[in-house]
Amino acid sequence: MIRFMLVGTATAALVAAVTLPQPAPAAQSFESEQATLELETVADGLEHPWGLAFLPDGRMLVTERPGRLRVVDRDGGVSEPVSGVPEVYASGQGGLLDVILGPDHAETKRIYFSYAEPGEGGAGTAVARARLDLDALALRDVEVIFRQQPKTRGGRHFGSRLVFKPDGTLFITIGDRAERERAQNLTINRAQVIRIRPDGGIPRDNPFVGVEGRLPEVWSYGHRNAQGAALHPDSQKLWIHEHAAQGGDEVNIPEAGKNYGWPTIHYGEDYGGGQFGEGTKKAGFEQPIYYWDPSIAPSGMDFYTSDKVPAWTGDLFVGALAFRMLVRLDVEQGRIIHEERLLEDVDERIRAVDQGPDGSLYLLTDAPDGRVLRLTPAPKEW
Amino acid sequence: MIRFMLVGTATAALVAAVTLPQPAPAAQSFESEQATLELETVADGLEHPWGLAFLPDGRMLVTERPGRLRVVDRDGGVSEPVSGVPEVYASGQGGLLDVILGPDHAETKRIYFSYAEPGEGGAGTAVARARLDLDALALRDVEVIFRQQPKTRGGRHFGSRLVFKPDGTLFITIGDRAERERAQNLTINRAQVIRIRPDGGIPRDNPFVGVEGRLPEVWSYGHRNAQGAALHPDSQKLWIHEHAAQGGDEVNIPEAGKNYGWPTIHYGEDYGGGQFGEGTKKAGFEQPIYYWDPSIAPSGMDFYTSDKVPAWTGDLFVGALAFRMLVRLDVEQGRIIHEERLLEDVDERIRAVDQGPDGSLYLLTDAPDGRVLRLTPAPKEW
Repeated sequence: MIRFMLVGTATAALVAAVTLPQPAPAAQSFESEQATLELETVADGLEHPWGLAFLPDGRMLVTERPGRLRVVDRDGGVSEPVSGVPEVYASGQGGLLDVILGPDHAETKRIYFSYAEPGEGGAGTAVARARLDLDALALRDVEVIFRQQPKTRGGRHFGSRLVFKPDGTLFITIGDRAERERAQNLTINRAQVIRIRPDGGIPRDNPFVGVEGRLPEVWSYGHRNAQGAALHPDSQKLWIHEHAAQGGDEVNIPEAGKNYGWPTIHYGEDYGGGQFGEGTKKAGFEQPIYYWDPSIAPSGMDFYTSDKVPAWTGDLFVGALAFRMLVRLDVEQGRIIHEERLLEDVDERIRAVDQGPDGSLYLLTDAPDGRVLRLTPAPKEW
Repeated sequence: MIRFMLVGTATAALVAAVTLPQPAPAAQSFESEQATLELETVADGLEHPWGLAFLPDGRMLVTERPGRLRVVDRDGGVSEPVSGVPEVYASGQGGLLDVILGPDHAETKRIYFSYAEPGEGGAGTAVARARLDLDALALRDVEVIFRQQPKTRGGRHFGSRLVFKPDGTLFITIGDRAERERAQNLTINRAQVIRIRPDGGIPRDNPFVGVEGRLPEVWSYGHRNAQGAALHPDSQKLWIHEHAAQGGDEVNIPEAGKNYGWPTIHYGEDYGGGQFGEGTKKAGFEQPIYYWDPSIAPSGMDFYTSDKVPAWTGDLFVGALAFRMLVRLDVEQGRIIHEERLLEDVDERIRAVDQGPDGSLYLLTDAPDGRVLRLTPAPKEW
């Protein structure tokens, strides 16, 4: 197999894509509890890739955190940057973040992406949509549909993952911008799941529509910094995970209007070991359905819906930054009944996890020379 | 603090208890996620202690697997063996196993205990009840109320934990006696949760009463070898855990008439690595609510119902033999949302876990010179 790759630069956006042959890295094999795994590098040379979306033709859109959007083909060819991406605040955890296709992509070519937007006061998470012109490698009709208010200084806790609800509304996870003291304030955008219409409007059935002192775009709150989100394949409910401080990363199933606790209740400690908040449980606050202590620093997630590995069907895969691994959470009847830790020997920060149309799992590694990895499982014989 | 202990012998049952002073072992302190723990040795010199029950006066009944039942007082005094225990098959995993008080103990002094009973064909799990005469250190009116049929040779997989349901019926966990090929056969007693009346009669509402080819004492089945059982403090449902072969120890909430899979579906492998069965999921078979892979070899369990450590209230504590530790499973709304591993440095096989009337956890270590340990948690400051 021959792979092709081009490392683009931000200033070469209009240069036609050129591909250079590159030797294929050997696939690595791993044994896991329920499957034999083959891991291949699909593409490399990506600078801190963050979000991944599959195009109908099998190619991928990949964001690079410094502010570039690229098209990666199945054989590893990496395009020049797509033009038209708004200016991003590329500092700390900020930059160009998630990307997904619109539900009407086949007709409209629309994509949706999140980013740290610079502006008065500092930066905040924003979400835009645009039409993708693949021939010209350009975004057209870019519209900002959501802006986290107010902006603030510093480069921490932007979120942000994007998931369409089956009703056509859009979920956006936003972090607390490292402002713990404002994380329960519903007059501003901190530590929330946001739900908006694809044009930025407010769905009438959002939980706080018409409620004094609560922003109408808020779906749920008390989420410190969620960098993973996906729809459960059966229930069609949103699942997210979120980073804790020191200990207590959570998986939650955010329901309308509910409070997931941060920083009033949580399962961790402050960095360095101090206690804060009011414990782990309190009336009026929701419990997670799973938590990690110590923190693994989760990022990216997807459900495995293929039936190629029956033992995996319905399982949740989560990337881990600090713990440098891929986690399989065995999900049965809405419960997480087991955790398996995979690819620890690969020793990469896993930023994103998405099942591809081929039933493989695609991973992004968070590194200056980041990669797209393809993990293909084969079931064990029974 | 001064502790007293007497190591009795099986032939000295009628000798009056004598206590000898013994220096108190120092308490050890441990930090855990949500509590600071103090661990003390209450009593030692017990030969493979297996089951533990608290008497109304604060003393404990402790079984020793070779066939002795002893009374242990709060200061570590260990009585001579209680007389009247039936002959047990004390080989391999067999012997005198669990002990609990009857729900009517205050009036009747009844206790219930399980053991491997020798007999035609080998041995099988049996359950007896008796009146406990503490003054004479004797069992009176011993009645066998359950016998696993048929008996078979070998010393593996007897179960057996005893739990009274709030309706006054008795749950008994029995293992498959290492007869995997008969573990789904409902015309014999293998790999089941049994439910009987305290006198051994069959409750009329058992799921297979009147069902051809299914024994009426069976509550649920497909449980390989359950050595832990407790009632959930809120739902009052039975929870159990069970040993797998290699990988896949399970926690289940056995419901009437349901099939928990062994050996048709399971999450492990055969010893040495071969596959058997039909995978991890199948219609008509229940999923566990949690599983361990690799196997920890769980034994003993209890829910923590005290409010002294609010973060622990409702949590499930499980002993581990092979992994030599105590597991805390954080239980919220009927889900296990986190596992914490405790006392790994203590490096003991933990056979039994029971919350005492003082809100401490009492543990039995499985060793020729086994101990009763008291684990007292103090909440962290918030």
